[in-house]
Amino acid sequence: MEYETPLFFHVMEYAKRADRDVVDMVSGTPDWEPPESLRDAVREYADLESDQFQYPPSEGLLELREEIAARRGVDAEQVVITNGAGEANYLAMARALERDRGSEVILTDPVYPYYPGKTTILGGTQRFVATDEDGQLDPAAVRAAASEETAVIVVNTPNNPTGAVYPEETIEALVDIAEEYDAILVSDEVYDHYDLSGEFASALQFESDHRIVTNAFSKSMAITGYRVGYAIFPPTLVENAKSRHMLVNVATTRPGQYAVLHALKETGPDYFEANRQLLRERVETFTDALDAADAEYTTPQGSFYVMARFDGYPGTLENVERLIDEAGVAGMPGEAFGDSRTDWIRFALVTPRAETAAERLAAYFD
Amino acid sequence: MEYETPLFFHVMEYAKRADRDVVDMVSGTPDWEPPESLRDAVREYADLESDQFQYPPSEGLLELREEIAARRGVDAEQVVITNGAGEANYLAMARALERDRGSEVILTDPVYPYYPGKTTILGGTQRFVATDEDGQLDPAAVRAAASEETAVIVVNTPNNPTGAVYPEETIEALVDIAEEYDAILVSDEVYDHYDLSGEFASALQFESDHRIVTNAFSKSMAITGYRVGYAIFPPTLVENAKSRHMLVNVATTRPGQYAVLHALKETGPDYFEANRQLLRERVETFTDALDAADAEYTTPQGSFYVMARFDGYPGTLENVERLIDEAGVAGMPGEAFGDSRTDWIRFALVTPRAETAAERLAAYFD
Repeated sequence: MEYETPLFFHVMEYAKRADRDVVDMVSGTPDWEPPESLRDAVREYADLESDQFQYPPSEGLLELREEIAARRGVDAEQVVITNGAGEANYLAMARALERDRGSEVILTDPVYPYYPGKTTILGGTQRFVATDEDGQLDPAAVRAAASEETAVIVVNTPNNPTGAVYPEETIEALVDIAEEYDAILVSDEVYDHYDLSGEFASALQFESDHRIVTNAFSKSMAITGYRVGYAIFPPTLVENAKSRHMLVNVATTRPGQYAVLHALKETGPDYFEANRQLLRERVETFTDALDAADAEYTTPQGSFYVMARFDGYPGTLENVERLIDEAGVAGMPGEAFGDSRTDWIRFALVTPRAETAAERLAAYFD
Repeated sequence: MEYETPLFFHVMEYAKRADRDVVDMVSGTPDWEPPESLRDAVREYADLESDQFQYPPSEGLLELREEIAARRGVDAEQVVITNGAGEANYLAMARALERDRGSEVILTDPVYPYYPGKTTILGGTQRFVATDEDGQLDPAAVRAAASEETAVIVVNTPNNPTGAVYPEETIEALVDIAEEYDAILVSDEVYDHYDLSGEFASALQFESDHRIVTNAFSKSMAITGYRVGYAIFPPTLVENAKSRHMLVNVATTRPGQYAVLHALKETGPDYFEANRQLLRERVETFTDALDAADAEYTTPQGSFYVMARFDGYPGTLENVERLIDEAGVAGMPGEAFGDSRTDWIRFALVTPRAETAAERLAAYFD
């Protein structure tokens, strides 16, 4: 069995080996600081009694699950703490597929490449629905693709790679479609703290036994290496998901859960707003330079990414490598995100040198 | 789909809710201290640059993989850092099953209950081979059970729950059987630092493309909550395992990996020997009390566990709960480990009050 391994690691390696200085805009890894209270909690943890170094409950520390549940308006019983959003999405998709109600997984095109990969290891088949040019998803197109074979519909808002934020009507319609076809909507909301549009709507707003919401603290607290995420299941689906979580991972990092719990309680809205403001400024600088380079692009409504198209320079792996060598800027080939964006390159705005990158691109494509 | 959820959590909850003082001997959670250098590394980590809080490489920090590879005499490319031995065993069994060489998983009886559970979520079928009274596995019995349908043979040495340590000849024969039937031997060696017999043999001693070795720092460093383990694959099997690891978990805790790397480099053999000595003393105290209670038991050659049988008191869940309420000692029902040990109760020697428990059992069964 061959899996579709994401291209990220290949491109990052290539950029590292380059002979010149390269601005790395490949991966969605925040370059800003985690909350100071998170560092405090790590220090505190080092001196706790050794029983605090042992297994947490399999589904996660109760206090963390309760804190999340209170903020999201759900019951703590519905919350499973996972090894990042990665495991959360895996559990959610597995739970939907194991109901034996068909094996088709509806994904968007462009798509975050882990979703098709997870579909394959779970024995599902992929069916892609194209978004529009701005990355918006038309519920009518999803409905047209849905059938008795549909087990899951996976969406991501704010979106990686398009930067689209789906309006409330879209999310509501997707929940309706899931109910209509006895499918499960999996809504990956890991960029929810990076909604720059004010339009973000969580699938949790729509009460249903047919939607699972996944999230993580990886992006919101700038701790992608901690691996603390969560999934919120309907009561009818949660028990089997907990069993799979236990059988795959037993439990996830207790020190990580401890640090996140403290940071969650002690971090005010200013921290998150400051990070959004930083992103807004980078978006402006970067898109100004894209204008200067006569590139097409989408201004992101949320998440970290700008997709751009340069005239006569399709976003193939070969061209991305050439851009690394000749311009000193590393992005992700559009082909990694599906057939519809093979002409495009995705740039992640998670470097203090986004401005330098912008200048280099403007000069290179001048 | 229903999974066989381990009984551990149920029994631990029951013990916690009891009206009286209970010595908890349910779960294999060390009560001794982690290495001091591990705490030092956690302190140090709190002040690192924020880029150290981001994704590690998917297969684990290179320095940690190299350190493990050097100690185990393998190539770093063969090592995947996992979310504890739990994920390591999941990846190993999945890798063996996805070769499409049959779907049967040979397990021992008694068995560590996560293995049959993992078999089920991976779509395999279980076939049990009984061990002898001391928990030793006869390779001839495994050979008799093996066929073209055999995808995996899973063993655990030092063994949970029996305390058996398999001699070198057994491991060598199991590798041979795996090769003969194009199956994969998965050798879970998570208790290797708690070999009290001096007889432990790792499957790594026998060069083969048909064996995967799994391990973790959870038990050896008394950090079951950190979730840092590893699997060592033959070069022919490692790439797909890395892909699955990436698609399920993306990567595992970077702070945990950092702490383990430092502790691994800075912890001498004295730390591990002191823990073994503590266990030896507890085994003696506890089995002396079992003698006084006229119980049958196996003196463990390794791991943390003693299985005992009390006359007229089979190890059902009901009797285990009665023992909690009436004697103040919590063990695990033998039925959790398979059909052959339904008369037995497993006690984990990971409490400073093992002596109190022993006295209570002696008095109760007097």
